[in-house]
Amino acid sequence: MTSSPTNTRQYGTTPRINGQRLIDSIHTTCEAWGQAHRYGEHHTETGMARLALDDNDAQVRRWFAEQVTALGCTVTVDQVGNQFAVRPGKSSDPNAAPVYMGSHLDTQATGGRYDGILGVLAGLEALRTIQEQGIETKGPVGLVNWTNEEGARFPLITMASGVWAGVTPLETAWNTQETPAAAAIYGNADKPATVKEELERIGFLGDTPATHTAMPMAAHFELHIEQGPILEAEQRKIGVVEGAQGYAWYEVTVRGKDAHAGTTPLHTRKDALLAAAQMIVAGNGVAHAESASTPEKKGVVTTGVVSAMPGTPNTIPHTASFTLDVRHPSSERLAAMVSALKKEYTAIAEKSGVEVDWVCLSDNAPAVFHPDCVAAVQEATDEEVGTVTTSDGITQQGWRRIWSGAGHDSCNVNKHYPASMIFTVTKDGLSHTPVEYCSPEDCIVGAQVLLGAVLRFDAKREL
Amino acid sequence: MTSSPTNTRQYGTTPRINGQRLIDSIHTTCEAWGQAHRYGEHHTETGMARLALDDNDAQVRRWFAEQVTALGCTVTVDQVGNQFAVRPGKSSDPNAAPVYMGSHLDTQATGGRYDGILGVLAGLEALRTIQEQGIETKGPVGLVNWTNEEGARFPLITMASGVWAGVTPLETAWNTQETPAAAAIYGNADKPATVKEELERIGFLGDTPATHTAMPMAAHFELHIEQGPILEAEQRKIGVVEGAQGYAWYEVTVRGKDAHAGTTPLHTRKDALLAAAQMIVAGNGVAHAESASTPEKKGVVTTGVVSAMPGTPNTIPHTASFTLDVRHPSSERLAAMVSALKKEYTAIAEKSGVEVDWVCLSDNAPAVFHPDCVAAVQEATDEEVGTVTTSDGITQQGWRRIWSGAGHDSCNVNKHYPASMIFTVTKDGLSHTPVEYCSPEDCIVGAQVLLGAVLRFDAKREL
Repeated sequence: MTSSPTNTRQYGTTPRINGQRLIDSIHTTCEAWGQAHRYGEHHTETGMARLALDDNDAQVRRWFAEQVTALGCTVTVDQVGNQFAVRPGKSSDPNAAPVYMGSHLDTQATGGRYDGILGVLAGLEALRTIQEQGIETKGPVGLVNWTNEEGARFPLITMASGVWAGVTPLETAWNTQETPAAAAIYGNADKPATVKEELERIGFLGDTPATHTAMPMAAHFELHIEQGPILEAEQRKIGVVEGAQGYAWYEVTVRGKDAHAGTTPLHTRKDALLAAAQMIVAGNGVAHAESASTPEKKGVVTTGVVSAMPGTPNTIPHTASFTLDVRHPSSERLAAMVSALKKEYTAIAEKSGVEVDWVCLSDNAPAVFHPDCVAAVQEATDEEVGTVTTSDGITQQGWRRIWSGAGHDSCNVNKHYPASMIFTVTKDGLSHTPVEYCSPEDCIVGAQVLLGAVLRFDAKREL
Repeated sequence: MTSSPTNTRQYGTTPRINGQRLIDSIHTTCEAWGQAHRYGEHHTETGMARLALDDNDAQVRRWFAEQVTALGCTVTVDQVGNQFAVRPGKSSDPNAAPVYMGSHLDTQATGGRYDGILGVLAGLEALRTIQEQGIETKGPVGLVNWTNEEGARFPLITMASGVWAGVTPLETAWNTQETPAAAAIYGNADKPATVKEELERIGFLGDTPATHTAMPMAAHFELHIEQGPILEAEQRKIGVVEGAQGYAWYEVTVRGKDAHAGTTPLHTRKDALLAAAQMIVAGNGVAHAESASTPEKKGVVTTGVVSAMPGTPNTIPHTASFTLDVRHPSSERLAAMVSALKKEYTAIAEKSGVEVDWVCLSDNAPAVFHPDCVAAVQEATDEEVGTVTTSDGITQQGWRRIWSGAGHDSCNVNKHYPASMIFTVTKDGLSHTPVEYCSPEDCIVGAQVLLGAVLRFDAKREL
């Protein structure tokens, strides 16, 4: 990791959080519930495998509920297991919606200790600070733990905030089955579990309707690791997030003809996997072409899942399937990339004598965060982070405006209520890997900005 | 299918088999034990899923033993479940080894009714004809059902003839686990079954040593569908097989770095699956280059199995694995193709910042069949198949010399005892697929040639 730049700012008026308590809460909960994939000697040097609604997720959810209850919060669980903790404010207005903080406690199968977890535990530290220091907020302040943000076990990303936002039907989420890989891990290979079955099994199938009208918000602030290399490369402390790029997920299925690998001449083959491999390579070409077309180098295409049937070494596959994850901050460019992909794939299919089908698994327009929330984050950042002195001795602004490359629950919230995000430095830009890392100093600065943004937004409310 | 050419030959002196009985035995046994993948209305229009040592395989093995016992055969089962049926001949010499026919009764997961099955049931029909017509052979005549030729469930192709031939250690075969796909089918996902466990379960773990010295052969003749398009395209009835091309199986593993699909810029990625896709495409390029270099268009490369880890749509895979099946009739050219593949893959790995490892799963030199056996097949063919009149009205020789594209149990036998094969027409050249087909007429001609070859070889024995 590049040596951390020095923050020259003298802190302002926002109450100070207990930084060590925040860091301890991250590691003790990770080590108790879902640590996996050790990569170093120190006790903190493991990744995580806390898949949505498994036993580890169930245990950290119960711990979360105990902690916020001890801070005077009421906890509501909705029909998709979202946990809403709310601490009352001064106002007696029963209709005053809370200013929420929120993120998720589930991880990828080979995930790290910060993606999502930092946002929830920074929110918890903020609530603890408010309680300890007897801070009276105008309106209620809350903290949400969103269910199955990762879509790693149940392949529906930001699933439960999507249901809450009306983007995904409740039945669709409930009936989503765990992936074959997950089913094998949990001994459900014969009968993969559904979201609803697992919500019931772990006791988090709430009866509050999973909708934004039942659980309204005044605003939603999410602290999250950048998951990219920009802040680290530029040696900045904080990213003030203006929005998130759009992304679309597709499952592409290629159908050819199975035949014997040893006896079928090359020119008579209809090899579904060979065509799929050509498509995966072509998809990367489309991404490079798009990225090269703009100075910001925007636009990515990724294939993360692939399979071939019947799946024996000496049979030319009759069917191959793979996923496409296509992203761009501009709806227009995202659509243009998908068109380019379809054009390339159709050409490859014709040349190879195979058929290609597309199923859209998820289509998410870019999110432009609410100016009031972005302003609150900017003011809190200005207080916490001034200029920084880089490792090269250069003095520069310690923060930058940034766009999110990933989708987040905040994008679903932003469809109905003001939302924005705060990014912290991510070592080597890596996440969704056990070595994902954000330094204690950077976690603490981020949490401080989160608290500052919430208190500012609350202070400006008319109640 | 092209209309079958007319065979002008008047049959000779070889006893006539009961063709209808042969065809009935194929369909009744397929329909009783393992039929799957219906593709048409007629009762015969399904493929097969009779995986080695499953319950269907167990039942057809018991049926096989009953049939040959009823013909006066003794049946020996060895340590890997090979079934050797032997009918005594005139000679009283206890050391006279049998002239065997043989093939296999197991199929691919999406297999057909002819690959292997035709060879065993044609042998059974030959034994029935010998018994019915009171034919007294000089030496004993036998029929072998080789275990797990396909390697579809237990990924070790021609497994049991390989153990018998001393190519594969007994322990290696016994400890081979079923593939994850097969384990899921049989409800063993938690604990995939081994060959030895399944041999015990179905009662075919014999105590006769699985070695060619314990079960010697005077010769081995195998009737098999061509599994390729050559005989059909040239409108010939029979292929007199001179040998089988060599083949090598590899598992290639590519290791990169997992990272978030949305936030990781293209230029910082180490995408294991993208590199694997480039390698699969490059492997096909190596095959085309080799094939184009000779007029016979020899040399094929196939990838039938692929996977990526961790296997979520929004994570760049840290690891990708795939199989390579590389074939050529020349050992030198096969080695040259493998070298070319390794060179290409190393270059791709360096360019992509990933690592690539190779594991050789199977390496089989080309087989050149024994001249005495090939001569016996040629004589029997000359008797059964003269000139044919093609659909275009052209009169031509009804047979051709041919090389096998696939590996067969006969290749293992040929390492120790004289062996050869007889090929029949395969519709559209397709096998390892449910629509695999050989017409009744072609099955019958093939079985007639098999019997003719066995009787000729026997007649020339000095006993």
